[in-house]
Amino acid sequence: MIKESLEAFYKKNEAQVLDQFFQFLSFPSVSAQPEHKADLLACKDWLARYCTSIGLKVEEWPTSGHPTLFAYNLEAGPSKPTILLYGHYDVQPVDPLELWESPPFEPQIRNGEVYARGACDDKGQCFYALKAIEAFLQRDGKLPLNVKFVIEGEEEVGSPGLSGILPKYRDRLKADYLAIVDLGLPQDNVPAITLGTRGLVTMTVEAICSNGDMHSGLHGGVVYNPLHALVELFAKMRNERGEITVPGFYDAVKLVSQEERKELDLSFDAAAYEKQFGTKPTGGEKAFSPRERMGLRPTLEINGLHGGYGGEGFKTVLPARAQAKISCRLVPDQEPAIIGQLIKNYLEKNAPEGVKVTVTVHPGMGSAVRTNPSSTSIKAFSASYEEVYGEKCRRIMEGGSIPIVPKLAEACGGEVAMVGVGHPGDQIHAPNEHFGVDRLRKGFLIIARTMERLGQG
Amino acid sequence: MIKESLEAFYKKNEAQVLDQFFQFLSFPSVSAQPEHKADLLACKDWLARYCTSIGLKVEEWPTSGHPTLFAYNLEAGPSKPTILLYGHYDVQPVDPLELWESPPFEPQIRNGEVYARGACDDKGQCFYALKAIEAFLQRDGKLPLNVKFVIEGEEEVGSPGLSGILPKYRDRLKADYLAIVDLGLPQDNVPAITLGTRGLVTMTVEAICSNGDMHSGLHGGVVYNPLHALVELFAKMRNERGEITVPGFYDAVKLVSQEERKELDLSFDAAAYEKQFGTKPTGGEKAFSPRERMGLRPTLEINGLHGGYGGEGFKTVLPARAQAKISCRLVPDQEPAIIGQLIKNYLEKNAPEGVKVTVTVHPGMGSAVRTNPSSTSIKAFSASYEEVYGEKCRRIMEGGSIPIVPKLAEACGGEVAMVGVGHPGDQIHAPNEHFGVDRLRKGFLIIARTMERLGQG
Repeated sequence: MIKESLEAFYKKNEAQVLDQFFQFLSFPSVSAQPEHKADLLACKDWLARYCTSIGLKVEEWPTSGHPTLFAYNLEAGPSKPTILLYGHYDVQPVDPLELWESPPFEPQIRNGEVYARGACDDKGQCFYALKAIEAFLQRDGKLPLNVKFVIEGEEEVGSPGLSGILPKYRDRLKADYLAIVDLGLPQDNVPAITLGTRGLVTMTVEAICSNGDMHSGLHGGVVYNPLHALVELFAKMRNERGEITVPGFYDAVKLVSQEERKELDLSFDAAAYEKQFGTKPTGGEKAFSPRERMGLRPTLEINGLHGGYGGEGFKTVLPARAQAKISCRLVPDQEPAIIGQLIKNYLEKNAPEGVKVTVTVHPGMGSAVRTNPSSTSIKAFSASYEEVYGEKCRRIMEGGSIPIVPKLAEACGGEVAMVGVGHPGDQIHAPNEHFGVDRLRKGFLIIARTMERLGQG
Repeated sequence: MIKESLEAFYKKNEAQVLDQFFQFLSFPSVSAQPEHKADLLACKDWLARYCTSIGLKVEEWPTSGHPTLFAYNLEAGPSKPTILLYGHYDVQPVDPLELWESPPFEPQIRNGEVYARGACDDKGQCFYALKAIEAFLQRDGKLPLNVKFVIEGEEEVGSPGLSGILPKYRDRLKADYLAIVDLGLPQDNVPAITLGTRGLVTMTVEAICSNGDMHSGLHGGVVYNPLHALVELFAKMRNERGEITVPGFYDAVKLVSQEERKELDLSFDAAAYEKQFGTKPTGGEKAFSPRERMGLRPTLEINGLHGGYGGEGFKTVLPARAQAKISCRLVPDQEPAIIGQLIKNYLEKNAPEGVKVTVTVHPGMGSAVRTNPSSTSIKAFSASYEEVYGEKCRRIMEGGSIPIVPKLAEACGGEVAMVGVGHPGDQIHAPNEHFGVDRLRKGFLIIARTMERLGQG
């Protein structure tokens, strides 16, 4: 009974698992903020030592930004297939810091959940996959198949560094299967495999009016307030039906066929959603259901908008400039660079006279992904999920984006599976991110059992 | 030759004037920020000691907020008229601090200009008026007329405290003339008296969507982003002609008659404006000229808008909330409280489902003011301006607002004159506020000579 044995390994080592996990979480490896560069390097060093200690060979691949770790063990030999696992050691920024109930880099367990930035995304998921490798090497002295693990440090900024070095390391990355261990479940403890992710393109918009802030009494009604310029431009980008009006935005978007829909779990519990997040699902395109809007439709969202006075009381200022962050989630065939350019053109060309609008499309972009639901790898993962959760494994679409996935899949050449045990309420990218202690165990079992399945061919 | 004598007094004392002025400017008396409460009290104490030292009796009038100073000398006696001067010792916030070339509360002279927060608005103008009083008392041992001086500490937050105590002190404030020493000139060194100010109403708008920030991948297209809610609501408040579309906004607005226009200098040098501020005068209602939009038309401006990520790089967040600051400049007969309520109703009622919008109208509001251009007081000031500048004194409209003026005028019962020597480029309410050393002298002469004129009856 191999399954019990893996369980037993995990149970015996659980205290150590948590201790090591907390060490991993304590590094403020925020890739978006240059002041954390040393923290990323320290986190990478810790991880490299850990991988070596469990019996993996480790290489550090320099990139244009934070380095990528490549850990591997190919001792199963040429008669066995190879799996390439993917995870990341960088995390999202933590602001607004004041909303965290415990410090984001001092992990704390409350009600069976580990609270820390990265607890779920992606240190937790990365860590249980490493524990699965450790279990085989410790118990059997060998792995059921050849394993490669890419752990990068720039996923949260769109993986520019890893993208850049993929051509150089194509041969090293070759594998039969590619498992992206950075995904989640549609509801708590409901097993599911992700068949697709959305693409992503992000940009910074700057509107400049005057050479300095101005007094709203002396200049109000005279100058074109850059906040009004942005407000008007942004409002015009979506119509009353929630559709995006930027010319060409939908040109490559195909409607999902009825057959494809049948494969997918498109159910949505609006009451549970409202209870959990305190809001109704009223955004986006009115012609589609919430689950369709979440996974099958593209978006255009303002992720930040800042200009003028924001403190206590009031200041009658007309700001000289205002800045916004915009992103689009994309569906298959929407090219991120093209969509970015369409929006840049739209905003820059429609800026009112007197306000200069400049759009910078960020390099960290990625295309949408759709995987083959009948592949060997998806079938093996499905069986493992069903074993661990005791119910049928669903197929879902992920609204988020992992820009590196399509590029990594191309370099690796293997069948893609996007897996993980994140829960909708894990607060990834938000204050109080958390991940269940018990999910470390479940994730560990899913990865380990799938390795066994794929190793048995 | 009285004029020479006042000049001589000023010249003899100029070093001391600057030394005392710098002391006055060194207090960070920012009324909008509670953390500066002690600084306001220290500034008020310094000012009270100064007023006493030059021969004024001083009373401190407690208010709901920062205290008002009342300094007076009525020894000219009942045969002479009484002038009530008005100024304020509080200043605007200093952010963005990084744009200041020298610290805002460490005054510095560069190219003949004193750089400091409050250098013009209103410590500089307040101070030369006090120097005029000091000159008479030192030279003659008496004033040419009875003088009362109200110096408050909440002008920059709409004067709620002074407004509240006006009924109590009506008798003490009675005067034949009321001089508001907080205004400016339409161009550098072009003499002008202000015949009107705009009213003001300010508000804070808060939009709340969810109970926490959300991931734009998982929830993008599902929830109603509060930034989009504000952007859409704000864009709808003005049309393509720059008109404000909030129902009822223009109901009380009257067009200015041709006769009234004849009194006013409505000239505008667009090239000079663009050179000075780095922008074209392209904002506001397209049917009116820049100078009309500046003084004779109401506005609705976003003075601040903040939500989501604003740091380096990118964060794919859907913010839980967003906040904005809005103000309207008003013309005669537009009641600030009514306009505030119209906007509050409009925004709250038109909020999209899923986003709660709450508007708080701030209490510091004030009506527009129009003064009688043929009053004794305006004539006396005009003559003094012409004497000091050597050219005809123009009549202008001020786009800014001094909410206390209509209330103070009502309590005082005297003829209102709105005067001062601010320049358009003084950067009041903005980084690097400044005021010319030579304008301290000019302002001093204008106040002193007008006191003599009014005292001669």
